[in-house]
Amino acid sequence: MDENKQSIFRDIPRDLSDEFFEVIASSGDVKIERIISRGHTSPQTGWYDQAQNEWVMVLQGEGQLTFSDGRIVTLVAGEHIHIPAHCKHKVSWTKPDTDTIWLAVFYT
Amino acid sequence: MDENKQSIFRDIPRDLSDEFFEVIASSGDVKIERIISRGHTSPQTGWYDQAQNEWVMVLQGEGQLTFSDGRIVTLVAGEHIHIPAHCKHKVSWTKPDTDTIWLAVFYT
Repeated sequence: MDENKQSIFRDIPRDLSDEFFEVIASSGDVKIERIISRGHTSPQTGWYDQAQNEWVMVLQGEGQLTFSDGRIVTLVAGEHIHIPAHCKHKVSWTKPDTDTIWLAVFYT
Repeated sequence: MDENKQSIFRDIPRDLSDEFFEVIASSGDVKIERIISRGHTSPQTGWYDQAQNEWVMVLQGEGQLTFSDGRIVTLVAGEHIHIPAHCKHKVSWTKPDTDTIWLAVFYT
């Protein structure tokens, strides 16, 4: 938890062979996370089935979420969506050759 | 709490004679808010002295925070800072003739 300013667009790891997850701030039941994808999809198999609500926004690049009910939502920079707890979903596509930067807030 | 996607850059009120505050998502002790300033400073007098922690990022435009210890922090798009509970601060400047869009997460 840094009290100095940081930029969501900077300090991007050079090696992004794996999707990158970084906790920006957290306290109690709340976690604010930066996620950087470079063509990644996740999870590797199956769905995210989370105990917490997630509010997620794309800040750079482009990503696609697929929900277990078949719904597909594409997010470009500035677009955000609320994913209720236990709403099964996955990142089914992110723009290749680009760093897609997500901001996710997890909360109960 | 909308389960469809929205854009942080869209649906900006035409009338911004007052600073604009909009709750994007909230639950329990957590509130995710969009704030739009057009040259505004806030609060009108004194300081924000909040019972909750705040994590805040500028998404568009430019804003300046002043803290009661004299520290001044300017944030441009993508820059974010953590403001602990009861850390007195104010928005001492925002870019004139521009919509400065802030994302704030308040949590305990």
